[in-house]
Amino acid sequence: MEPKEYRSSIIERRKDVLASLENLGVKIYEQMDKGYFPSVEMPSRSTDNIYYDQKLRQFILGDKTVRRSARNIRHLKPFAQLVWAALFSYELTSQRKTSTLRDVYYSAQAYEMTFKDQQESNNIITDLETVLGFSREDFNIFPEERSAVFGDLTISYTVPGYEGKTLNLTSHPDGVMIGPALTSAEFVETTADKVIAIEKGGLFTRFIEENVHKKFNALLVLTAGQAPRATRHFIRRLNRELNLPVFIFTDGDPWGMHIAMVIISGSANAAHLRDLTTPDAKWSGVWATDIVNYKLPTDPLDEIDMKRLYELQKDPRYKEDPLWQREIKTFMKIRRKAEQEAFSRYGLTYIVDEYLPAKLEETR
Amino acid sequence: MEPKEYRSSIIERRKDVLASLENLGVKIYEQMDKGYFPSVEMPSRSTDNIYYDQKLRQFILGDKTVRRSARNIRHLKPFAQLVWAALFSYELTSQRKTSTLRDVYYSAQAYEMTFKDQQESNNIITDLETVLGFSREDFNIFPEERSAVFGDLTISYTVPGYEGKTLNLTSHPDGVMIGPALTSAEFVETTADKVIAIEKGGLFTRFIEENVHKKFNALLVLTAGQAPRATRHFIRRLNRELNLPVFIFTDGDPWGMHIAMVIISGSANAAHLRDLTTPDAKWSGVWATDIVNYKLPTDPLDEIDMKRLYELQKDPRYKEDPLWQREIKTFMKIRRKAEQEAFSRYGLTYIVDEYLPAKLEETR
Repeated sequence: MEPKEYRSSIIERRKDVLASLENLGVKIYEQMDKGYFPSVEMPSRSTDNIYYDQKLRQFILGDKTVRRSARNIRHLKPFAQLVWAALFSYELTSQRKTSTLRDVYYSAQAYEMTFKDQQESNNIITDLETVLGFSREDFNIFPEERSAVFGDLTISYTVPGYEGKTLNLTSHPDGVMIGPALTSAEFVETTADKVIAIEKGGLFTRFIEENVHKKFNALLVLTAGQAPRATRHFIRRLNRELNLPVFIFTDGDPWGMHIAMVIISGSANAAHLRDLTTPDAKWSGVWATDIVNYKLPTDPLDEIDMKRLYELQKDPRYKEDPLWQREIKTFMKIRRKAEQEAFSRYGLTYIVDEYLPAKLEETR
Repeated sequence: MEPKEYRSSIIERRKDVLASLENLGVKIYEQMDKGYFPSVEMPSRSTDNIYYDQKLRQFILGDKTVRRSARNIRHLKPFAQLVWAALFSYELTSQRKTSTLRDVYYSAQAYEMTFKDQQESNNIITDLETVLGFSREDFNIFPEERSAVFGDLTISYTVPGYEGKTLNLTSHPDGVMIGPALTSAEFVETTADKVIAIEKGGLFTRFIEENVHKKFNALLVLTAGQAPRATRHFIRRLNRELNLPVFIFTDGDPWGMHIAMVIISGSANAAHLRDLTTPDAKWSGVWATDIVNYKLPTDPLDEIDMKRLYELQKDPRYKEDPLWQREIKTFMKIRRKAEQEAFSRYGLTYIVDEYLPAKLEETR
């Protein structure tokens, strides 16, 4: 089945998820009813079936498919595991309980369904994502990691016990955690006209203290390193539903650059999904050229950093915009990297007073 | 100077911090005024001066002292760095701006104060903690990591722009982030009669969804692995100011056990500080004996786990209560470990319906 395009209404989406799980069950039941061995077909996720799509600006799966059939003795166990994963996902989603990949692994034992190890159960959940085109967060299977958001956006919860309750995301000046309740909330209203995503917690707090949300009419999102999938989906929603441009600020090194890229164009691992990317988001810094222009304190790029730069240089996602190639080349030339905090050499508020407005202007 | 005993009022404490920094400046100035080379004396933090104090139930520093004098050419640089750290801390605290250790390192350059590397500036901040007996969070230098809290506690902020505003900690069902604003808030009122601290994010969310805060009148604290210092201080405040008993739930392995221990009795690294521990808190599970009694799915303890158990067995903190030694021995005997999620083998809510009430009763 084709991966699902984004829909704005959380409640509509939940209905689609449940219908899609029911539909899988019906298909399997009908096959058995007709006397056939039940089977499921899905796109292959092997690397030779992953392509970069220039229109979608993300990786997608090609035409190769794989089939799991109860007729094939080698498929029998993964087929049963997949059906169990669908049952468990249906229970989670309909009962509105959340879970983690780790929990799924142990929960299987309550059903006398066995997985060899965590990796095996993770793979089956990815199979289910691929078959149905929904992501595991849609089945209420969430990552452990939490990031945060702050700014003038009022949300309305859809989780049990909080239905219809609203919260303004300036309510808590440490930032509001992005967990299952926030990612399943509807957006009510905002005065913001942009989103600023920030890699580091210390800087996120600095931005709040310096009133960046007011001065720049911005919603501030903390990615806390590589943004968890739920956060990437949340950023996409801010961009799509509220029409807010997204600016990403990371450390000035290949890893920071890639944090921005994964928010923009996603990863090859999620080629079977469609709603984790924000192709129009901008990487606003710290660029290699910023390191030069702002004379930032630096550390040398080590061998692992350099190896990573060579990998990124060949990556199709980095061929979209000449900016990426220019910055990769500059990193290779100067062989230095700089953290976001390096701007503190000009005083704690320089990054907010000088750097941020200059870069928002440059990348808008 | 003696490490500071806990005080309930945040605003009083901030005044003490500023007075203590001013006092350091005055002392140095007076020495110079009298024509002496200025110097500072502080307890030595070398391992031969760290003792376990059975009354305080934490590590403390002994009588050995070290002196930094401007007269000694080798002391001149660290002395100047210490004075700069005090100046910078004074600016942060009085201007109510927060910072991180990383930021401190870079900020020094704005003052033409140089540190060889991050480690050197971290050490100087610890020196300042030792000289003044306050922790760096008191100087508004916070860790990057954030954990969370949820439950019926109303707080009143003291941070700029939010002074006097209140928030009930059930406002956001993903949990409320414990950052600089929350840790500097006053407690207004609560109906809770206990604190339950939880290692894992997925379980924290499960507890919220299953209404553990209501069913058990509890404030739920997510430690997110090893609890950040700000969170340990926050747990101590809940215990001291609100008289709430604290129960800690971790994975059933030496690392989980030690997460609980560091909340209870702190670490040797913080022997110069007094307000990061909660000696009356209880480690309520997952015990090695729980693994046996509840027949939990397990993984084998590896060599690193076993080595860690031998270390803990000899640690004075683990000799306080026979429970610790019994559990260490049981781990060594069964050579197995289990995660908190392992209870999901009995269904997702078993941990809340059966295990939690049994353990609260057993360890109260």
